[in-house]
Parts: sequence; structure tokens; C-alpha cells
Amino acid sequence: MGDERIYRVVFHLDEDDDERVLLLFANVRNLMADIQNVEIEVVAYSKGVSAFLRDSEYSDRICKLIDDGVRFAACSNTLNAWGITSGKLVDGVDTVSSGVGEIVRKQAEGWAYIRP
Amino acid sequence: MGDERIYRVVFHLDEDDDERVLLLFANVRNLMADIQNVEIEVVAYSKGVSAFLRDSEYSDRICKLIDDGVRFAACSNTLNAWGITSGKLVDGVDTVSSGVGEIVRKQAEGWAYIRP
Amino acid sequence: MGDERIYRVVFHLDEDDDERVLLLFANVRNLMADIQNVEIEVVAYSKGVSAFLRDSEYSDRICKLIDDGVRFAACSNTLNAWGITSGKLVDGVDTVSSGVGEIVRKQAEGWAYIRP
Repeated sequence: MGDERIYRVVFHLDEDDDERVLLLFANVRNLMADIQNVEIEVVAYSKGVSAFLRDSEYSDRICKLIDDGVRFAACSNTLNAWGITSGKLVDGVDTVSSGVGEIVRKQAEGWAYIRP
Repeated sequence: MGDERIYRVVFHLDEDDDERVLLLFANVRNLMADIQNVEIEVVAYSKGVSAFLRDSEYSDRICKLIDDGVRFAACSNTLNAWGITSGKLVDGVDTVSSGVGEIVRKQAEGWAYIRP
Repeated sequence: MGDERIYRVVFHLDEDDDERVLLLFANVRNLMADIQNVEIEVVAYSKGVSAFLRDSEYSDRICKLIDDGVRFAACSNTLNAWGITSGKLVDGVDTVSSGVGEIVRKQAEGWAYIRP
């Protein structure tokens, strides 16, 4: 019984102000509480990548969400432009060739898109 | 003759600044004028819910749009977090378990997504 | 060999602050570099249309992107509301009945949607 469908959702983060980043984390948690069978990826590019850095104030939240099965992906173009290596990212955060390309590929595979 | 296709669109509102809220209402009206067979739902969560409250300056606009067949849905998580009941919402505004989940479900059913 | 799939992406611009407009142009360029077979349309409405005007600081960027096959579409509702003619747009920028309707039609045809 219940809704057996699997939902897949890509979140888009390209800003770094606290309110927007915290809203995104709340979105992810609320979505996980609301829909049982959900696969979530959070893609950051531009300023959004700063939230994924090891020394960001959000690193604990990200670690916990990774433990809970959420995927985090940072844009390599942004990392290269900033001159920082992927080693600066929170453990478990992946890199993708481009954040925008990743979001496009996910939507092309049928994923829903949320831009908080 | 003409385009018999039915279009379905979910709008996402999570901000409360006047410019953004008014842009969303203009979007809805422009969309209804441009595409005849369109089903529209406006989903609000976080600060976006304040526009849907009975005492908001947008309540008349919302009433008219509901009369014209637009559905408005407010996030229960937000209402609970704010400690306000659904009775504070404009008459005819629905509540959903979570705003983000509602947007995801609509997209999974093939609805287009607009985030003004 | 390689990914022969064609990706189609509609970008949404409704703001005019430099940071957002420049991010959109960087997005388009990064997407073109990341995905070879990509068809891109940038739709502007409301304040976003100002970036598409002939005398905007972005006109050269737009010309080059049009040369590279990107389509730009400005909302006629916005132009009418501003009392300006399509002749004020950068050469090669198209007009559409409404920006929001254009984005909806593209998504209904299976295009991915990016709102930077």
C-alpha cells in the first residue's frame, strides 16, 4: 500500500546568503519527511559552492544529509575559478563538470527541479 | 482548430517582498491571457505564505484568481512553524503537507515549474 | 561514440541586477562547454528585458551568443508595459507573446528549466 513511486529531485543553489541556504536545507528535510521514496541531489555553483566548503557553518548539516542519502555536487568550473581544490569540500561532496550541466542532465532524466 | 493541449503550471513562492509577489501575480495573469487551456497552482512556503494570509494586501487578488480557477496552496510546515491556523488563510486557499513536496509531486505529474 | 542526445534548456531571467545577469551568461557559456548537443533559449520578462536592449552593457555578449546559436526571447507584455518597441532590442533578439507562456511551452515540449 502507499505511494510506491520513486521521486527524484535536484535542488539548485547559486547564492550564499544565510537565509537562502538555510531555506534550502529546510526544504530538503521537509521533502524527506513528506515523501518517503525520494532521491535528492543538491547542486551548487557560483557563490552557492561556499556552503559546501569544509569550513562553512553548514558542514555538519551536509554531513548528516549525506549520511541520510542526499547527494551534494559542487561545480568544478566554480572551484577552478576560485583556485580551490576539491579537498576543501566537506567529505562526501562530489564534484561535477559544471553545476548547470548537472542540473540539466538530471532534468533530462526526469528529475524535478527546485530553485529555492 | 487552435491549440487544444492543456498546460499545467506550478508557481513557486518562498519570498515576501512586494516586487516578487506582484511579479508572480502578473505572471499568472499574463499566462492566463497567453495560454487558453492552462491549469495553474501557486504554492507558497516559508515567507511566501504571508501573501496568502487573510489580512495580506494581496487577499483580493487571490480571491479573484481563485474565482478564475487558480489553485493556491500553502505549506502546513510553515503554518505550524509560525503557530498559525489555516483559518488565517484567504478563503479558498488550500493547505498541503509541505510546499516543496507539492511542487515535486506536480512536476512528477508533468506540470511545468516557474520560480519568479 | 559520446552522448548523442540533444539537450534543450530554457533559462529564465526576470531581474536586472548585474550579478544575476552575469551569472546567467556564465551559465550559458558553461553549459555550452559542458554539453555538446545543447539547444538554449534565454527568456526575459519584467526587469530581465532591460539586459536585452540595444544600449545595455550586455549587448555584445548577446550578439556573440546569438552567433553561437543561442536564442533570446523578450516578453511582449513587458515591452508594451514599458512603451518601447522591439526595435530597441539587440538585433536578433526575438519577441514572444509572454515570457512566462514561452517558458511554459518550452517545458511542455520537454525542455529543462534553469532559473539562475
